[in-house]
Amino acid sequence: MEFDLIARIRARAAGRDDVVLGIGDDAALLQPPPGTQLAVSMDTLNAGVHFPPATAPADIGWKSLAVNLSDLAAMGATPAWCTLALSLPTAEAAFVEGFLDGFLALAQRHSVALVGGDTTRGPLSVCVAVHGFVSAGAALRRDGARVGDDIWVTGSLGDAAAALAAMGAGAVSDRALRARLDRPEPRIAAGRALAGLAGACIDVSDGLLADLGHICRASGVGARIALADLPASPALSRFGAALRRPWQACGGDDYELCFTAPPTARAAIADALLATQTPATRIGAIIAGEGVLAVDEAGEPWAPARTGYAHFA
Amino acid sequence: MEFDLIARIRARAAGRDDVVLGIGDDAALLQPPPGTQLAVSMDTLNAGVHFPPATAPADIGWKSLAVNLSDLAAMGATPAWCTLALSLPTAEAAFVEGFLDGFLALAQRHSVALVGGDTTRGPLSVCVAVHGFVSAGAALRRDGARVGDDIWVTGSLGDAAAALAAMGAGAVSDRALRARLDRPEPRIAAGRALAGLAGACIDVSDGLLADLGHICRASGVGARIALADLPASPALSRFGAALRRPWQACGGDDYELCFTAPPTARAAIADALLATQTPATRIGAIIAGEGVLAVDEAGEPWAPARTGYAHFA
Repeated sequence: MEFDLIARIRARAAGRDDVVLGIGDDAALLQPPPGTQLAVSMDTLNAGVHFPPATAPADIGWKSLAVNLSDLAAMGATPAWCTLALSLPTAEAAFVEGFLDGFLALAQRHSVALVGGDTTRGPLSVCVAVHGFVSAGAALRRDGARVGDDIWVTGSLGDAAAALAAMGAGAVSDRALRARLDRPEPRIAAGRALAGLAGACIDVSDGLLADLGHICRASGVGARIALADLPASPALSRFGAALRRPWQACGGDDYELCFTAPPTARAAIADALLATQTPATRIGAIIAGEGVLAVDEAGEPWAPARTGYAHFA
Repeated sequence: MEFDLIARIRARAAGRDDVVLGIGDDAALLQPPPGTQLAVSMDTLNAGVHFPPATAPADIGWKSLAVNLSDLAAMGATPAWCTLALSLPTAEAAFVEGFLDGFLALAQRHSVALVGGDTTRGPLSVCVAVHGFVSAGAALRRDGARVGDDIWVTGSLGDAAAALAAMGAGAVSDRALRARLDRPEPRIAAGRALAGLAGACIDVSDGLLADLGHICRASGVGARIALADLPASPALSRFGAALRRPWQACGGDDYELCFTAPPTARAAIADALLATQTPATRIGAIIAGEGVLAVDEAGEPWAPARTGYAHFA
């Protein structure tokens, strides 16, 4: 019964002072802080498309919220509330409890209250909507890149794609790489620190080249990046450059932030990210024109077999 | 490609003055009016569960927004923004255009801006989140029913269930009945008029007895309704009382409002609903105890074969 599942979810959902009315009515009632704008994003994960059907329920729960919080991070927003629509083939309490273990662990880490949604019968699918706040004018948009800006990326790229490649080959993937795929950490603190400081920002969900391409299109500019400068984790560095390059440049699911800022802001960027203990690397520059030019160590253009994740490919 | 579908959706979505940034970035940026609370609801429709797979795309679009706006109506909220997550087995532009025909027609009628969401590959499923405003303290909650209150229902009940029964029997359903099933009209104006006036309110989506039961549980009261007083449309009145009774008392998908108010408020309720041209009928009273007692013409308790729609039955 739907009502039993909702009761389970309601019993475990934590509140917030600005939640006037949470789960259990026709709609949630929420009190936004005065003077801020609301940032809203919604993303769906479908079994067999966005995660293997055998994924642990807790990992599905974590990731379904993480990909949404990552969108708020990319806007420089502070997360506050979320709603959850869970479609399940059968009303399995054990699945729901496991799912909530992961979902609510991440929600608690970022003080996000689960305030509503629904549970329905259907193929396994998770749709989450998240709400956050950002000061007027401070949001990190895709259309703020200017010619001459540096291009930065937080953390490291390619771990999730490497783990996925290992799974696809039937191999056991490295634990550190696998954690990046199953339990991505949205860069909330870094996004907030960059709000009002960076020019443009996007989270790397479809792959660096594809996502940087979105910034270029929205801003009416081009980009040039040096593949040799793409940051790699210790676990990924064990692979040769030729093997890991497509993972770093085109692999999705990293949920790092790719952002632009003028060279004059380098010190301020470094200070802001240091304060949030977020590593970041300059990987190229915004140029006139259009599209993303990726060059290898010899300065030669590099073209991947595919860029990003084509949802209907 | 997802990006093509998003471009189609973006091209057709209308704006609002309070939409700072709509479709096309990591999140939408919205400006809530000062001094109001935000009402947020999210509902999913899955093919084969919430609508027959052969349903016209425009009807799926209309209904997926209607069921969500109905939740805002039941809170007494004024709708403003929505997000849409559309899962499709294949990237069919014709389906998306048809879907938008219905979805955006209803959105326009209520000045709702589509501000974000996603399109993904997966079994046909629609998840919509809606956002509206309500003055602090004026929202219509489920927990506001008091012993002695009248129980009211807007419009008429049972049309959608009658249409569904005809479809299930392989018969052609009456056009008026079928319209109630395919194109429900959320009672936005009535909900706004009742805000601050009614005690408790819910929209009739699972069936009157089930939904009134939610009000009783939330308010810690019971309810007594007279089946003979349940309003029927002209189209439904052609059926005998015994046939139409389960449709009226237990059929879902009507999206009327069921609400409570003290008898002293009768004139004010009537005036408020008259101003919005919403018919409404008193069908019973809130009593001490728990559960919903439905009595027939002879005053005998009536028990339906099933109450409401059990999502995992």
